[in-house]
Amino acid sequence: MAAIDLNADLGEGFGVWRLGDDDAMLDIVTSANVACGFHAGDPAGLMRVCRSAAGRGVRIGAQVSYRDLAGFGRRFIDVAAEDLVADVVYQIGALQAVARASGTSVSYVKPHGALYNTIVTHREQAAAVAEAVRLVDAGLPVLGMTGSALFDEAARVGIRTVAEAFADRAYRPDGQLVSRREPGAVLHDAAQIAARVETMVTSGQVSATDGTLLTLGVESVCVHGDSPGAVEIATAVRDRLKAAAIELRSFC
Amino acid sequence: MAAIDLNADLGEGFGVWRLGDDDAMLDIVTSANVACGFHAGDPAGLMRVCRSAAGRGVRIGAQVSYRDLAGFGRRFIDVAAEDLVADVVYQIGALQAVARASGTSVSYVKPHGALYNTIVTHREQAAAVAEAVRLVDAGLPVLGMTGSALFDEAARVGIRTVAEAFADRAYRPDGQLVSRREPGAVLHDAAQIAARVETMVTSGQVSATDGTLLTLGVESVCVHGDSPGAVEIATAVRDRLKAAAIELRSFC
Amino acid sequence: MAAIDLNADLGEGFGVWRLGDDDAMLDIVTSANVACGFHAGDPAGLMRVCRSAAGRGVRIGAQVSYRDLAGFGRRFIDVAAEDLVADVVYQIGALQAVARASGTSVSYVKPHGALYNTIVTHREQAAAVAEAVRLVDAGLPVLGMTGSALFDEAARVGIRTVAEAFADRAYRPDGQLVSRREPGAVLHDAAQIAARVETMVTSGQVSATDGTLLTLGVESVCVHGDSPGAVEIATAVRDRLKAAAIELRSFC
Amino acid sequence: MAAIDLNADLGEGFGVWRLGDDDAMLDIVTSANVACGFHAGDPAGLMRVCRSAAGRGVRIGAQVSYRDLAGFGRRFIDVAAEDLVADVVYQIGALQAVARASGTSVSYVKPHGALYNTIVTHREQAAAVAEAVRLVDAGLPVLGMTGSALFDEAARVGIRTVAEAFADRAYRPDGQLVSRREPGAVLHDAAQIAARVETMVTSGQVSATDGTLLTLGVESVCVHGDSPGAVEIATAVRDRLKAAAIELRSFC
Repeated sequence: MAAIDLNADLGEGFGVWRLGDDDAMLDIVTSANVACGFHAGDPAGLMRVCRSAAGRGVRIGAQVSYRDLAGFGRRFIDVAAEDLVADVVYQIGALQAVARASGTSVSYVKPHGALYNTIVTHREQAAAVAEAVRLVDAGLPVLGMTGSALFDEAARVGIRTVAEAFADRAYRPDGQLVSRREPGAVLHDAAQIAARVETMVTSGQVSATDGTLLTLGVESVCVHGDSPGAVEIATAVRDRLKAAAIELRSFC
Repeated sequence: MAAIDLNADLGEGFGVWRLGDDDAMLDIVTSANVACGFHAGDPAGLMRVCRSAAGRGVRIGAQVSYRDLAGFGRRFIDVAAEDLVADVVYQIGALQAVARASGTSVSYVKPHGALYNTIVTHREQAAAVAEAVRLVDAGLPVLGMTGSALFDEAARVGIRTVAEAFADRAYRPDGQLVSRREPGAVLHDAAQIAARVETMVTSGQVSATDGTLLTLGVESVCVHGDSPGAVEIATAVRDRLKAAAIELRSFC
Repeated sequence: MAAIDLNADLGEGFGVWRLGDDDAMLDIVTSANVACGFHAGDPAGLMRVCRSAAGRGVRIGAQVSYRDLAGFGRRFIDVAAEDLVADVVYQIGALQAVARASGTSVSYVKPHGALYNTIVTHREQAAAVAEAVRLVDAGLPVLGMTGSALFDEAARVGIRTVAEAFADRAYRPDGQLVSRREPGAVLHDAAQIAARVETMVTSGQVSATDGTLLTLGVESVCVHGDSPGAVEIATAVRDRLKAAAIELRSFC
Repeated sequence: MAAIDLNADLGEGFGVWRLGDDDAMLDIVTSANVACGFHAGDPAGLMRVCRSAAGRGVRIGAQVSYRDLAGFGRRFIDVAAEDLVADVVYQIGALQAVARASGTSVSYVKPHGALYNTIVTHREQAAAVAEAVRLVDAGLPVLGMTGSALFDEAARVGIRTVAEAFADRAYRPDGQLVSRREPGAVLHDAAQIAARVETMVTSGQVSATDGTLLTLGVESVCVHGDSPGAVEIATAVRDRLKAAAIELRSFC
């Protein structure tokens, strides 16, 4: 029976502020990318989402970021490699303790936002993230994009890489994501997204904007947790996969 | 041969800002209370001090604090117990990963500043700190004051407590510290401080402001790392103890 | 014709996080207590709410707070008077520039959350807030509770005080608010709240929890901007006042 | 009699952390670029430096920055123009109130660190800074580098530009500064620096690294306030200029 992992960004509130419906998403996904406090996530909020994930058997990943609450980690910061290594180590460790205190553990690492996008190509920062993971626990896989500098650097230091595709993002013919600043970058139709994900999983392929068939070979599919209709879309994806006899299962 | 632990607060800079001479202090003390980012301590700075401590065989403690960079953790914050538990878990975990990445580990927990003072008597916050330690690792001892609410609460959940005395602080007859707002609260004469510490270690006693002899029974003595003359005072203490054939040795 | 001011806390998001529906509230209230960045309010968000207020002719007040994003300014902080003076000066000035850049200005000051509650009785912090207002612009009134230490201290330095009542909060017989930790502290029924506000305005009185009639003599009524049903409640209050031929008008 | 302005970055501590000797520098310079809280500068510290400057008749400039305490504003952040406008407005306003409360006012604006360097060439961010100044007070000059995008954009919106040179930085033949990452970027010899400044002022020229004579036409010279030997270097510059009968005078 075919199987795939579904991951989503969760725990992305801060103090009184909430983003998305973590509990509803945790009923659907198999992997929760939990914020670590640098772009979002106060400790008490992280504890809540970790407990909720533990209770549902959902895997937890450390969603590490630039230090940028005001920008939600969506702005490139030209941080020195030495500082980035330490920032990532610190974040993973903080979430590890929160997870442990919640009866679970951190199973993988996924960079967030601008850091995610930057280390598709930025070799120095990619190496810093890989090095940070290696220093904390070389057994933690990193979740990211095939062909990225992060994957090269992770492989170089012996870190397992797990390729993901985005359920609701348009792809360029070169395999990169269409920038959010361009029209059509994000898909909104739940049924269309669900069908697209089924194709990704069964054929390993996704259509780029010009119709080119890209082969992604993904182990996980990312569904968004905070966009309007997030829960509805994630539900549609799950139901479609179930109907196609594809099991939802963590990649760990 | 008699032995005692010397501890000091280290890693208390942030970004470009430094406080005290960490490396000089690490040549003297046996336990380093390392900041965890909430009152001080950016991750790269914490990595530096952890590596330096690891290289010298100095034990590392997590110096947990209220979240208050602007106030250096010296201001009471009426934080809810649930939030404080999570804040302390988060901080310990962050430092654990930084320590691990530096080839060492966190051996104990010591609250900082206003949190330290508050949980001498504030039962709810004391219980929150004890609970946080228990959740992360019930084998981590807490360093603090005999007779404090923290020690009661730690004992209640099975956490080892390690009593400390302050080398350079005046004591009231009731065993509490003289407030820093009062004159004479802090001693400055290196030779006097060194002699006082020797007495603490050999007799287990310290003179209160009115001459009362207090019995402290301490396992560790705290020397300040960031005050003017800190290194000179710590050196005097170490030399005096060595001359008295008292070994400096971690309580762990 | 009788008149009253309606005020609400607005601009209380941060970065991607939003709280309440500022624009809907600005269609109703006559005074907007705009966050200043210490408990909420990133500069771009403050600019948006100031522009929106300016476009509707709604007055802007500086909602000053303890520095506490993680706690939303709802936790008492034992900040030194000298620091609090400077913190409040800084916040008012920041919002003044944002307001000016938005074609309007700051017309008054209202403390937020735990600071608001603390300086009902905490003389030193109350004096610090009053002194800060005096230093920035002695012509700025402060909005707060009759009988508070803040009002005493403001009067002492020549600052105008503007008394407010809370539309949806239960009052104790001594005129203080019932703590949010107690049941019944917050009223939720829009019609009941609207009727209560009409009585406040026409008779100057409000019923305490035991039925005692308190005389408040208020110039402004605070409606909440971020609670569930906030817009509905504010609308009910406005409609009820209009039906009673009471004009909504800023106290400035 | 020839005259020149000397400016330095001051108020760059945060909470317990200090950087440089503000009072000693204020005895020398004629313009103080005071931090505004985004890269450094807690409000109480800003109040202290503003009062000190006011007492000595030193002009105050708002040293605006990216929001980055951990990186001291030295890291490029890809902040959106709309956010940067608001961030700069907020910072200027905060310092204006602190200055007013200290009996003085903000006389100019100088970007700090990575923002300063970025808007030599980054047109969008340069325009955002110029627009922010215009929105707050179009009468405030900006201090920066001749030929920069900032100067173009400031001129475009009617903001006065004031050119500065750096006393202790090496210049490339194209008029840009040698990067701090390269050897020889910063000069350390007080007498050499003082002589260089005299030449800048009397001839309007400075030698680039290859000997090329650059014509700068500066109205202000920047001396560093926080480097080792900062006070000694600034004193040497002042004494040399005095000996050459060049008056130190604000450009305002």
